[in-house]
Amino acid sequence: MLFTDYGWRASYVGQLKTAIYQTNSVATIIDLQHDAPVFNPRAASYLLASLINFVSTDAVVLAIVDPGVGNLARRPLVMKADGRWYVGPDNGLFNVIAKQAEQLAFWEIDWQPEQLTKTFHGRDLFAPVAAMLEMGESPEMTNLSTDEINFLDWPLELAEVIYIDDFSNALTGLRGDRVSTDMRIRLGERDVGFAETFSAVGEGEGFWYSNANGLVEIAVNQGQAALAYNLKIGDPVHMYLP
Amino acid sequence: MLFTDYGWRASYVGQLKTAIYQTNSVATIIDLQHDAPVFNPRAASYLLASLINFVSTDAVVLAIVDPGVGNLARRPLVMKADGRWYVGPDNGLFNVIAKQAEQLAFWEIDWQPEQLTKTFHGRDLFAPVAAMLEMGESPEMTNLSTDEINFLDWPLELAEVIYIDDFSNALTGLRGDRVSTDMRIRLGERDVGFAETFSAVGEGEGFWYSNANGLVEIAVNQGQAALAYNLKIGDPVHMYLP
Amino acid sequence: MLFTDYGWRASYVGQLKTAIYQTNSVATIIDLQHDAPVFNPRAASYLLASLINFVSTDAVVLAIVDPGVGNLARRPLVMKADGRWYVGPDNGLFNVIAKQAEQLAFWEIDWQPEQLTKTFHGRDLFAPVAAMLEMGESPEMTNLSTDEINFLDWPLELAEVIYIDDFSNALTGLRGDRVSTDMRIRLGERDVGFAETFSAVGEGEGFWYSNANGLVEIAVNQGQAALAYNLKIGDPVHMYLP
Repeated sequence: MLFTDYGWRASYVGQLKTAIYQTNSVATIIDLQHDAPVFNPRAASYLLASLINFVSTDAVVLAIVDPGVGNLARRPLVMKADGRWYVGPDNGLFNVIAKQAEQLAFWEIDWQPEQLTKTFHGRDLFAPVAAMLEMGESPEMTNLSTDEINFLDWPLELAEVIYIDDFSNALTGLRGDRVSTDMRIRLGERDVGFAETFSAVGEGEGFWYSNANGLVEIAVNQGQAALAYNLKIGDPVHMYLP
Repeated sequence: MLFTDYGWRASYVGQLKTAIYQTNSVATIIDLQHDAPVFNPRAASYLLASLINFVSTDAVVLAIVDPGVGNLARRPLVMKADGRWYVGPDNGLFNVIAKQAEQLAFWEIDWQPEQLTKTFHGRDLFAPVAAMLEMGESPEMTNLSTDEINFLDWPLELAEVIYIDDFSNALTGLRGDRVSTDMRIRLGERDVGFAETFSAVGEGEGFWYSNANGLVEIAVNQGQAALAYNLKIGDPVHMYLP
Repeated sequence: MLFTDYGWRASYVGQLKTAIYQTNSVATIIDLQHDAPVFNPRAASYLLASLINFVSTDAVVLAIVDPGVGNLARRPLVMKADGRWYVGPDNGLFNVIAKQAEQLAFWEIDWQPEQLTKTFHGRDLFAPVAAMLEMGESPEMTNLSTDEINFLDWPLELAEVIYIDDFSNALTGLRGDRVSTDMRIRLGERDVGFAETFSAVGEGEGFWYSNANGLVEIAVNQGQAALAYNLKIGDPVHMYLP
């Protein structure tokens, strides 16, 4: 199960898969998403958490989002949470899942490949480790305590736009089942109310709904919400009771 | 075999595959196309029909194109046509294939998943049903007669642009083997004649040809036909004998 | 292992895979890259060569890049180089790999499918041949001597931009391990020096580095090199010792 910010262009995803198959030639690889919020592990963390309930409970999730600032060589991390394995950098990407988990453990990866480039740890380090874990093998790694993990202070929900999809819908880091459907979202000088589905509002009308992964999402029926309301990833989302 | 309008961005295709593997962990999934004409099951129906002859005769085809208007919750449909299974909404998407089929049957899906969201029937309902059919299992469903199916009055060919590819070639819903190569296509104030291949005309010259799937396609050698002739999906295509 | 210029849109890649599975229903297909430089087998040849060391040594590589000019129906070629099979048109695409190979042989494909369209040899001819080779079967083909192969005079390195990725990094056809890190690259009126990684230079600063596949790559830390320096595929790359 792959979740990255690599994009579908170029050969980055292809090389990741090549590396996985080199270790485990019978791996089943699912591309969950390859346009996770670039340079934004925080937004990506809420997005990944919203997808994980639909993933097999014994899956190995290889997730990589470049933090974009500072040293790229974050501590390489393995997390086990409620049966699923997670492999990736210790930059906060797994933290929303971690906070919701009932069973949780962390390890730092000690295993080293024969050749480790400075700029493609996904292919050289994380992919083989994920492939080993899927085969039931255990790469060399050292147990970490929870308080050694970065960014575990992030809140369970994020009142921000965390992703904008191809239909120009804006996903937020808020959970739809934790807010009243009486609430509205202020978007600059306009605001939108709740609707259960697209067809419940008129053509061109904006609304928010609880999407198929449980997140509050801002949309326009047959329109383009992010364009219409000038929304981008990171914008704050103000919900209020009128 | 997946044919959708989900696009490659976001996690929609990834979640579809996750749901298929949850039911059938050894499924072989082929992404046939994920940029079927958005909000246009009619154009998509001609496109899908042009691709189907190259698909294995025992394939399960999971096809989803959002009609964009009215209630999204169209009757969930299973069609069996000449050995292949088709799973998707009853919005016309399978109708061109149905009209060409020698053996044909329809069912309404009665099976229900434990959790059915309002906005992602592809993942929650259609994907598990397709996975069951590929395993040889039969989900609960009720036979439908042909006259209960929507839009079966669509013609066998469509004189419209049905798709524009990345090379800016414009595919039409017309069959190349049913028109004379003496015919020309009027495109605004210009028109183009037939050529067998790209290299048969000069650089920058427009022409039409019968593409590798049998459809009349408008192209420009080393150029961009849809841009040059200002073509978009749904534009009428006028063929005439000069 | 697929390497093409088909793009992810439309059904071209999907049809290629469908054709492979028709011949070999248990094939393992990896999408290495589908946005190889369009109409540019020369640039693509250096790109493919940079990726090949990470590919399994018994892989079958199906590679297609349209030359864009002249007759599309180039001689269909099979190459075996250091254990790996390569299938595609004889347009130079495999030549950088050929020049580096210790064991090398070429064949012209004589095998013909029942139905061969004029415009989709990838699906009709190359895909089944690649699938047969992966199964250990041998399609009909005739040995060729090396001096019958097109474009084997291309140099081992190319001082040009050969690809621009989604992050606007510009890859060149030069090998990082064959140039001194004291060298600079002139880019119009500006120039950039070497840095080991992105984080070694300031935000917005340009540099060149040896990328994870060994190529000299021009980048800007948290910026967009190709945009900033107005680079496109085919632009010459001037390295010099200041």
